[in-house]
Amino acid sequence: MSLTNADPLEAAKAARLGSRKLAILPTEDRNAALTAIHAALAEAKDEILAANARDLASATKAAESGVLSQSLVKRLDLGKKGKYEDMLQGILDVRRLPDPIGRIGVRTLLDDGLVLERKSSPIGVLLIIFEARPEVIANIASLAIKSGNAAILKGGKESTESFIAISNVISKALQSTAVPNGCLQLVVTRDAVGSLLSADRYIDLVIPRGGNELVRMVKQNTQIPVLGHADGLCSIYLHADCQIPMAVRVIVDSKTSYPAACNSLETLLVDEDALKTVLPAVAEALLSQGVSLRCDYTSKKALSSTLDKHQAVFLQDASDEDYKTEFLNLILAIKTIPKTETPEKAVDLAIDHINEFSSHHTDAILTSSKSIADRFLEAVDSASVYWNTSTRMADGQRYGFGTEVGISTNKIHSRGPVGLEGLTIYRWIIIGEGQVSMDYGSGAKKWKHQRLPVGDEEAIAQDEEELRMLKEFRAKRMASS
Amino acid sequence: MSLTNADPLEAAKAARLGSRKLAILPTEDRNAALTAIHAALAEAKDEILAANARDLASATKAAESGVLSQSLVKRLDLGKKGKYEDMLQGILDVRRLPDPIGRIGVRTLLDDGLVLERKSSPIGVLLIIFEARPEVIANIASLAIKSGNAAILKGGKESTESFIAISNVISKALQSTAVPNGCLQLVVTRDAVGSLLSADRYIDLVIPRGGNELVRMVKQNTQIPVLGHADGLCSIYLHADCQIPMAVRVIVDSKTSYPAACNSLETLLVDEDALKTVLPAVAEALLSQGVSLRCDYTSKKALSSTLDKHQAVFLQDASDEDYKTEFLNLILAIKTIPKTETPEKAVDLAIDHINEFSSHHTDAILTSSKSIADRFLEAVDSASVYWNTSTRMADGQRYGFGTEVGISTNKIHSRGPVGLEGLTIYRWIIIGEGQVSMDYGSGAKKWKHQRLPVGDEEAIAQDEEELRMLKEFRAKRMASS
Repeated sequence: MSLTNADPLEAAKAARLGSRKLAILPTEDRNAALTAIHAALAEAKDEILAANARDLASATKAAESGVLSQSLVKRLDLGKKGKYEDMLQGILDVRRLPDPIGRIGVRTLLDDGLVLERKSSPIGVLLIIFEARPEVIANIASLAIKSGNAAILKGGKESTESFIAISNVISKALQSTAVPNGCLQLVVTRDAVGSLLSADRYIDLVIPRGGNELVRMVKQNTQIPVLGHADGLCSIYLHADCQIPMAVRVIVDSKTSYPAACNSLETLLVDEDALKTVLPAVAEALLSQGVSLRCDYTSKKALSSTLDKHQAVFLQDASDEDYKTEFLNLILAIKTIPKTETPEKAVDLAIDHINEFSSHHTDAILTSSKSIADRFLEAVDSASVYWNTSTRMADGQRYGFGTEVGISTNKIHSRGPVGLEGLTIYRWIIIGEGQVSMDYGSGAKKWKHQRLPVGDEEAIAQDEEELRMLKEFRAKRMASS
Repeated sequence: MSLTNADPLEAAKAARLGSRKLAILPTEDRNAALTAIHAALAEAKDEILAANARDLASATKAAESGVLSQSLVKRLDLGKKGKYEDMLQGILDVRRLPDPIGRIGVRTLLDDGLVLERKSSPIGVLLIIFEARPEVIANIASLAIKSGNAAILKGGKESTESFIAISNVISKALQSTAVPNGCLQLVVTRDAVGSLLSADRYIDLVIPRGGNELVRMVKQNTQIPVLGHADGLCSIYLHADCQIPMAVRVIVDSKTSYPAACNSLETLLVDEDALKTVLPAVAEALLSQGVSLRCDYTSKKALSSTLDKHQAVFLQDASDEDYKTEFLNLILAIKTIPKTETPEKAVDLAIDHINEFSSHHTDAILTSSKSIADRFLEAVDSASVYWNTSTRMADGQRYGFGTEVGISTNKIHSRGPVGLEGLTIYRWIIIGEGQVSMDYGSGAKKWKHQRLPVGDEEAIAQDEEELRMLKEFRAKRMASS
């Protein structure tokens, strides 16, 4: 690992070379590297937080003069309660997970003595470009090493102090491990992004972590595949039959628990029948937490007549633009779903709005009806779709991945929170005895195409009893064939 | 399905709308559409081959005057023995395969009453751009419909007649099925590629099927993810201990069975110790099939002293460029791997050459030593890596996928031959009871993250017999509990 001011192309080349060695390191060596990183970061907490405080001070100043957004400042803060501990815990969680590399996914008997296998492998070299969120360095480092990938990290100038502090600690920690030098490249050179994005010879995947301007810039300037999301415009559809306490809890959490996060709620769709029954309690709770409510005509009218006067004065009018906006702040757009002949038609209107305006990141429905929920879960085309829980659940740690390299709204490879599995690909391996293609086909030999066990009984059996049965069944059949 | 001369953006929009309906069609409806396509194409064979013959005649003329490459002409020919039948069989094979959509891949208990599921879904809208190979239309149509994806097909001008003939047949066949109009768009408008490549709002994935110029053009002109390969520079490493008959069979098949194919052999790496033992028989067989051998100094010298004089005169000198060239023709570059202290070091030289010069498509080793083979299989970073079989095995039909949309050298999503699974993605679904993110984390509730059975017997059973057994076992246990 090196913190480099050198030519970014050299960094990329070094990462490529290192990646070949890292890819064949045994599991224990990769886990030992995570242990070393965790210990060093725990040890250096005060020093790193001091560096982060300096970044935070400059950023706050820049935000006051309007140069930087408030939401970026919030994402920068590593001192926020529990954040540093979560970062450390993420490293241990990743270490505990099974090795994602070298797994056989498919095994097929093509013909006698001709076996095809699909075996998981690291992707190669990752380029991660991030703006704020200094904890990303630790997340990426642990996920990359565990999955056998080399990583080049390029931080934004807002987090430079934190970046250098964390980098130095990780760098020193890795020196005593088997991870080859060069596998983690921390680039602080200014203006390095352009040449890194053109290094498709050395880099296999780019993961931008930042606002949508960064993501768009990256997509427009590279032929390397890009994993991530530009926007996080998440919606909740509040069905009229939802219990009030659940609606209040879930919507307040979705909107207020971390407004600068990509999985926070931005648009609330409300059944017309819920405007005077469920919505008032929700609006009251949101207003009391300082959330600005931007309402369409119908919902504003209903709320104005039900809320206390001193609260109702704060209601605002929504513009069309508000339903296309990721506020990343304490603002919520509210839209009424009009009454229809059947409840199904109302769900379809909500689904259509979401498929048209949401960013296909995370969308939820609140209802007590299973059939209504199923319709929604089936038709909403987003990376994560929820019934009766907060949009804030969209997160690698919460999904059980330990931590994440990011959240993807791509329709290929990895979708939603991306952990270890999203950083792997596979190779197809065939072991034969000299068979050739001309042996098969019209009028010649037939393919067998028989699925073979991959030794996965443990993974697929529901319990011990079924496992025993399955193993016996397969053994008996192998013996008789 | 429509064969359109209209605005390509309208075609893309129609495909997007159709895709939403196709995505929720039941399996039987999608299979019935394949039955209809198969019957119609079988019925119309003469008519389609007549159209193909017209394309072939123009292309042959163009090739004679040097405007078109010979390899393109070869790929265009649908009348080649067995090709039409293979195309028809591919449709039936795809129909027979289990439905790739709606499968639960992961089910995790996040907490009591809070369950996360990963469910497979169609990607959405595919854009397939191809030059020759008219059978691609039938392959793509069947794979797309079976996997619930809409597809826009744009053919090259060389295959226009075949394209229109096949399109009309498929179009008529689909009218009697449940597949929504618009789900298959066959674009014959000239110059439509540019606007289709910019339609990232409607199109989720581009699959170029053609020469590397087409692939590079596509990559440079779109922000939509691209699946495929530019080059197919495949290599074989011939280790000194390989039995002569196997070496001859595998190398001749790899080079000569279809030289215009991307999985054909282009570079042969030969152990120095094999130059006068195994290589002469291989060279003799290749020369007698009209293959030009471009040899490095050492291998040419060895062959000159062992081959018959009237054969040796045909040996050519290799230039550096030859080891970077995908000939797609009866030409083979031969390079010597020099003797080293240990056999492992020689393998490493071969691995280094392949990782540097091959196109990471398909590479093979011929050896009788398991440890040598394992070293090679582990370290070669290509989509397909073989031991003792022909590089021509890299093919969706041969892998058991029925047919393929193409072969990918991408390091994300799908690698190698791409069939149904490569045309799917997934959504993450959470079903809760009102739990919110603030309930969990430092000092609050702990996540359970417990793997639950996916109850997906179809996905896990190796074959019909095991599926029956597994379902019976589970049903019996459910009844008794």
